[in-house]
Amino acid sequence: MTARPDPTNRDHRWVYSFADAPAGDKALLGGKGAGLAAMTDAGLPVPPGFTITTEACVAYQQHGQHFPEGMWTQAREALAEVEAATGRAFGDPDNPLLLSVRSGASVSMPGMMDTVLNLGLNEDTVAGIARQTGDERFAWDAYRRFISMFGEIVMGVEAERFERVLARAKARTDGGRDTDLTPDQLREVVAQYKRLVFGEQRGQAFPDDPSEQLRMAIAAVFDSWDNDRAIHYRRVHSIPDDIGTGVTVQAMVFGNMGWESGTGVAFTRNPSTGEKALYGEYLLNAQGEDVVAGIRTPKPIAEMADDLPEAFERFRQIAATLESHYGDVQDVEFTIEKGTLWLLQTRTAKRSGAAAVRVAVEMVEEGVIDRATALRRVSPEALDGLLHSQVDPSADATVLATGLPASPGAAQGRLVFTSDDAEAEAENGPVVLVRHETSPDDFHGMVASEAVVTARGGMTSHAAVVARGMGLPCVAGAEDLQIDAAGGTLRAGEHTLVAGDWVTVDGATGRILVGQVPTQQPELDDNFRTLMSWADDVRQLGVRANADTGADAETARTFGAEGIGLCRTEHMFFGEERLEAMRAMILADGEGEREAALRRLLPLQREDFAAIFRTMDGLPVTVRLLDPPLHEFLPSLLELTDRVAEIKLALRRAGSMGEMDRLLEDADDARALLRQVDKLHEQNPMLGMRGCRLGLLYPEITRMQARALFEAACECADDGVAVHPEVMVPLVSVADELADQASVVREVAAEVFREHGCEVDFLVGTMIELPRAALTANRIAEHAEFFSFGTNDLTQTTFGLSRDDAGRFLSTYVERGIVDADPFQVLDREGVGELVRTGTERGRSARPDLKVGVCGEHGGEPRSVAFFHEVGLDYVSCSPYRVPVARLAAAHAALGEA
Amino acid sequence: MTARPDPTNRDHRWVYSFADAPAGDKALLGGKGAGLAAMTDAGLPVPPGFTITTEACVAYQQHGQHFPEGMWTQAREALAEVEAATGRAFGDPDNPLLLSVRSGASVSMPGMMDTVLNLGLNEDTVAGIARQTGDERFAWDAYRRFISMFGEIVMGVEAERFERVLARAKARTDGGRDTDLTPDQLREVVAQYKRLVFGEQRGQAFPDDPSEQLRMAIAAVFDSWDNDRAIHYRRVHSIPDDIGTGVTVQAMVFGNMGWESGTGVAFTRNPSTGEKALYGEYLLNAQGEDVVAGIRTPKPIAEMADDLPEAFERFRQIAATLESHYGDVQDVEFTIEKGTLWLLQTRTAKRSGAAAVRVAVEMVEEGVIDRATALRRVSPEALDGLLHSQVDPSADATVLATGLPASPGAAQGRLVFTSDDAEAEAENGPVVLVRHETSPDDFHGMVASEAVVTARGGMTSHAAVVARGMGLPCVAGAEDLQIDAAGGTLRAGEHTLVAGDWVTVDGATGRILVGQVPTQQPELDDNFRTLMSWADDVRQLGVRANADTGADAETARTFGAEGIGLCRTEHMFFGEERLEAMRAMILADGEGEREAALRRLLPLQREDFAAIFRTMDGLPVTVRLLDPPLHEFLPSLLELTDRVAEIKLALRRAGSMGEMDRLLEDADDARALLRQVDKLHEQNPMLGMRGCRLGLLYPEITRMQARALFEAACECADDGVAVHPEVMVPLVSVADELADQASVVREVAAEVFREHGCEVDFLVGTMIELPRAALTANRIAEHAEFFSFGTNDLTQTTFGLSRDDAGRFLSTYVERGIVDADPFQVLDREGVGELVRTGTERGRSARPDLKVGVCGEHGGEPRSVAFFHEVGLDYVSCSPYRVPVARLAAAHAALGEA
Repeated sequence: MTARPDPTNRDHRWVYSFADAPAGDKALLGGKGAGLAAMTDAGLPVPPGFTITTEACVAYQQHGQHFPEGMWTQAREALAEVEAATGRAFGDPDNPLLLSVRSGASVSMPGMMDTVLNLGLNEDTVAGIARQTGDERFAWDAYRRFISMFGEIVMGVEAERFERVLARAKARTDGGRDTDLTPDQLREVVAQYKRLVFGEQRGQAFPDDPSEQLRMAIAAVFDSWDNDRAIHYRRVHSIPDDIGTGVTVQAMVFGNMGWESGTGVAFTRNPSTGEKALYGEYLLNAQGEDVVAGIRTPKPIAEMADDLPEAFERFRQIAATLESHYGDVQDVEFTIEKGTLWLLQTRTAKRSGAAAVRVAVEMVEEGVIDRATALRRVSPEALDGLLHSQVDPSADATVLATGLPASPGAAQGRLVFTSDDAEAEAENGPVVLVRHETSPDDFHGMVASEAVVTARGGMTSHAAVVARGMGLPCVAGAEDLQIDAAGGTLRAGEHTLVAGDWVTVDGATGRILVGQVPTQQPELDDNFRTLMSWADDVRQLGVRANADTGADAETARTFGAEGIGLCRTEHMFFGEERLEAMRAMILADGEGEREAALRRLLPLQREDFAAIFRTMDGLPVTVRLLDPPLHEFLPSLLELTDRVAEIKLALRRAGSMGEMDRLLEDADDARALLRQVDKLHEQNPMLGMRGCRLGLLYPEITRMQARALFEAACECADDGVAVHPEVMVPLVSVADELADQASVVREVAAEVFREHGCEVDFLVGTMIELPRAALTANRIAEHAEFFSFGTNDLTQTTFGLSRDDAGRFLSTYVERGIVDADPFQVLDREGVGELVRTGTERGRSARPDLKVGVCGEHGGEPRSVAFFHEVGLDYVSCSPYRVPVARLAAAHAALGEA
Repeated sequence: MTARPDPTNRDHRWVYSFADAPAGDKALLGGKGAGLAAMTDAGLPVPPGFTITTEACVAYQQHGQHFPEGMWTQAREALAEVEAATGRAFGDPDNPLLLSVRSGASVSMPGMMDTVLNLGLNEDTVAGIARQTGDERFAWDAYRRFISMFGEIVMGVEAERFERVLARAKARTDGGRDTDLTPDQLREVVAQYKRLVFGEQRGQAFPDDPSEQLRMAIAAVFDSWDNDRAIHYRRVHSIPDDIGTGVTVQAMVFGNMGWESGTGVAFTRNPSTGEKALYGEYLLNAQGEDVVAGIRTPKPIAEMADDLPEAFERFRQIAATLESHYGDVQDVEFTIEKGTLWLLQTRTAKRSGAAAVRVAVEMVEEGVIDRATALRRVSPEALDGLLHSQVDPSADATVLATGLPASPGAAQGRLVFTSDDAEAEAENGPVVLVRHETSPDDFHGMVASEAVVTARGGMTSHAAVVARGMGLPCVAGAEDLQIDAAGGTLRAGEHTLVAGDWVTVDGATGRILVGQVPTQQPELDDNFRTLMSWADDVRQLGVRANADTGADAETARTFGAEGIGLCRTEHMFFGEERLEAMRAMILADGEGEREAALRRLLPLQREDFAAIFRTMDGLPVTVRLLDPPLHEFLPSLLELTDRVAEIKLALRRAGSMGEMDRLLEDADDARALLRQVDKLHEQNPMLGMRGCRLGLLYPEITRMQARALFEAACECADDGVAVHPEVMVPLVSVADELADQASVVREVAAEVFREHGCEVDFLVGTMIELPRAALTANRIAEHAEFFSFGTNDLTQTTFGLSRDDAGRFLSTYVERGIVDADPFQVLDREGVGELVRTGTERGRSARPDLKVGVCGEHGGEPRSVAFFHEVGLDYVSCSPYRVPVARLAAAHAALGEA
């Protein structure tokens, strides 16, 4: 907002007719006012009217809820122009002008007063309308509508009160519908409405004076700027409080003046597919609110060509003009009054992701816009829907429960509650796995399922991370679900489902739906590929993918990843057989046993690495050494305690000495395991024995991983594959940790190269995922050839907030505006962002050619990508399905800067 | 190290006689060389000798393990001076000069070659010595000692090999002791020693040429600078590798030349009490190593006045001269050879904390030193021992196990394994509570115990924190303990103790001792108070205490705290009755139930606050709102699962329907509790629902706490107590969290003041304990009147390291030098320190008068206190018993800067 005009300055211009308003000044006129001015300017048929500026609204608030001086006079003058243009007079009983009054801020803002129609009606003018239209019923119906609208919106009477009056009146008719009310009955409704207002307003009558009506309606718009809902909305959406709203006052036109009248809404192109053809619907002899109320079913716009051919043709031409004027698809509201077409509003059309892509590309081909504009027109998030199947938005669906949208896509199957059941039942058709939470033990169940649902855990819980990696739809942390796995039932609110019942999972919205709800499959067409290639031309950030297997890498490459930015080696052990070897390694007693277990793991790792290297032939692959707390791979303490108790119970019931002996042995085994697991138990595993701490204490783990990696690299290189491994040491907080691990890696590399008589170029670097690492990045960079910011963990430690445990309050924080967004979804620029910037600067100060990327979930989130571009990172890395989103977001960032 | 001399420069001075060495240049001469030069300089009777400089050592390493050119010639020249001064000649069979060769770097450095005595002996000179002394046995014994010493230290033969030869020889005598060996037997031992060396060295004979002996000994000292132990020691202690060691070569004198000879060590004042009187011991007719070997019991030094009155008197005078020369207590080694007193070494005496205080204060009174020097002379850590009882260092003790020294002090009692037993058994005499780990449930047991031991947990585990607060000795994380609480046994290594057995706990060293080991009680005398008052005059940092109860506050005030810097309100709920109310609050279903539970807690809190306010009359009291994860107050999931299983088991055995009904009810209750606890369970509670997050979700908790606080404040103010409450909001990461909680606190304050018709000045501020809070301190300071750095949590999140779980690897990190010190004990300046500095600067940039303190464990750690002084904080706050330590450390910091 520029300097505010003085509310007492009566010479200030507070009011503009559509015809002479500065159409480009949306801040002054509000969105609606600016749109109407522009259409008027373009010579389109717009009912005449004027706009009271947003400045007037601000002045009104400053002036103690009084109109700024001069405003009312200017409004009356503008109204006189409308009277002249329409040949009617406001309040004239013989030839009355009726008005609509609407609010319109420069940003769309629900919660404010919306619309009052038919303003100007009273006992006198209603008669005039009846006479002019020859339709008494129409006139009284309009009056009835006006009183209830004005009564509710301006005078604050509850809408329900009016509805009850109307319902009683309708009950007295034969048909029981609005249209069954006779003029006399409507007259009676009007009388009752007025009494109702009088009673509710404690003796203040419904205003009969049109001028008073207008004054009150304008004040009501201004007042609604400061109602609770509007204030809350502004706070949540960071909209300043002092930009105010405009008020548009416009001559009414009527679509319900007979069968040569009508009203409709149309898009200049299909908002769902992007096809270049008018798309929309209309109703003959109806007002806009009839369409909304759903009493009559509107007809497709194409049929208007038969019903009202002239008006249709004129609309078609105008629509084309509007689209080319604005250079984008328009969403146009129109009314035909006795054959004459009037435009009430035009705005840029909302559209599906698919439509956005098609329209953008086709408009470039049509020469309407340039490529940069086309790229800007498609929101990166919109692409996400294109890459996954979706629940048909038009389908009827019963929501069982809602959780976090942890991994996008829609799928359906029969309910199972254990991973073993999932595996068994999947042979008979699709299943959906529902668990309290998942662990590596559930991997085989997840593989067998179409989707996974958990009652616990956040966006980065085990289920969420693994599901995203696999492209499996997932809803996490659906806390309303009451799962009784043993009993095989699932309850939520009033619903109870049993194992085998069908459910549909909508991973994009976090909904779990009852039964089989239709879904739509994704399609990646030429338009998509074209747009992506333009994005690649523009962007400066590299885009890599996080992928843990050859299959992931395949997907990543399909979606255009330029390398693997994060290969999590621990994910390679989630399979059942591997998990067993991993457990043997963790529970090993001493270095010897551990090395034996590691020898079993080595060929498995080598095989995985080789598959990824082959897929990514010619591109870099960043492999992170083992990171997570070891006990993630062990059965939980609770389960083990339970098991010991179960065995005790069985012992009491043992029928024979043999059985007892066997049980006693079981009990010993279980107790021994329990003791070991208990020993490894950590209060806060996220802050415990993980990352490079493992490798420092057990260098044999690092050696095994390095050996598997370099052996795979040599093997692939022998086959002519161009391998570019980058070894990444996780969770470094002190430079010497990296120095130690880097030297182990380099030693093993030299060993393997000597053995194989081969040499492969590689880098050694580190994750920067702890505040201390970012702060001491200059020291760390002495030992690192690249950095990759692990913004998930960095967010955790910077905020002191666990991703898994934040669910209980983080949503409340977002709702109350304490944080702008969930910092695990959108990078927190102020705190975490400062560490990313500091880490990058200090790292490069010590090593100017340091390669710097990011591999947290933020790498695929557009606002975060913009930040990484700004900081000057070399690349972002995200899950394979987010790669196109990141490519487009990176292009947007580059365009934004240009 | 200044520029290094060229190893080939034969004109460079590599060797200095004691008499003309630059006595002040410790870097050049090493500590020992400088000391001997200084004593010689002062005209004291020092056996003549010379020092080969540290530069020569460095040059030797650079020169490919060759003496720098000219060094040997200079050494021979210096040796000639020694020959002249003693009237003996090196290698002369008739009148042989024997030498000692010692290493001596400028810093004390274990792990290097120490001493070779009697150098210069061979078959010829041994005969000369025998002739001169008329004591053949003495001569051959000296030769025997020389060979084993030289053989081991210079030639690398295992000491054990020599000992075995000697043992065999002794076995052949009647008495079986060294002294029972005849000259002939010793001669045979010498012959065997030489054969041993010849065999071990694969044909290299033991050198007979004295000159060769000297050359080899000097080289051995130089080489030992780079042995593994020395390198490791330097790395751990951050000693540069290139400062080198000096070598002192000195004429031997013999304390074992009959009953007018002797040797001893004495302190110029009592190193244990500080009393101004010679303290030490001596042996007639003995060499230093005899004292060490413990074969004969030395006599108190005072008795020397009778045995050798002249030598004693001369020594007394010299001791006084030395003390006043150095201005500090000296630790002097001397030898009397046939009535002549020789000084071998003097150095500043190590002393107990009590002695340090007494000596410092008395030396100021004597006019020897000024107050600043006196303050510098006492290490803050030394005070810690003064404030707690200690295990008598001279007592025999069997160590059962060693854990972390979690809370200082020594205590003993009978073993108990549960808190209920502790309470019950304490009536029959002192008990020591041993647990796997403690929880708030154990509070009553801790109160009843003399000391507490845990097998798990770190320096800041529940047991450790609570014990420190209570001044209760505690050893935490004694991982070797195998506790079978049900069986009532405690095993560690070969020991098995049962409930009721006596143990002694040494909280200062972390040792658990078997049985009742004598302890010493602390004494705070006038000297202590005097020194503290000098510290207070000097220091700029304020010193407050962390105290949670009136009793804690009492202790804090006794120790000189200037306020309470941290009152942890959750600790107030550790008592059993209170815990129950707390649990009701946590498990409350909805706001109504929660408020009912809070109403029960309110009077308890008010009472606690009032007690603290009264004790701290006139001083500020910082009260932190509820901070820890709620489930810390709940029974553990494991325990509950166990309980459910137990009930199931009991059900199987139920004897009657009535019993079964009761058990079924129990099972329902237990399961319901289990469900609720499970719901509150967090993966990483340290990063979960705690701190201000609680208050934001349940503002009624904040309101209750604020009400209790302000009601207590008003009540105390009415009684004329000067109350200065400071309300502290914990775990803020986003400024709006503080804004919200501060406004709740201020609202309640206004309410209470209105109700009570009273007004109390108070501040609202916040803990800065998360990296994001430090980084956005300017935003947070807009809502905070003070900051208090919670460096425990800040260290946790900056390093991504849980205090409780770090034990498994942090000690390894410290040992391997990856970190300089445990960052939970000594503040990490580079990472955490930068955040403290940044937070302070940004906070004050927004609010110049912001009061800034620190309330983590670091507030009582001297090196950390120095840093906080440097950053310019207003105060530190630490546990009551650390207050004197912090006061002195703050004085040191101020002196250091001056």
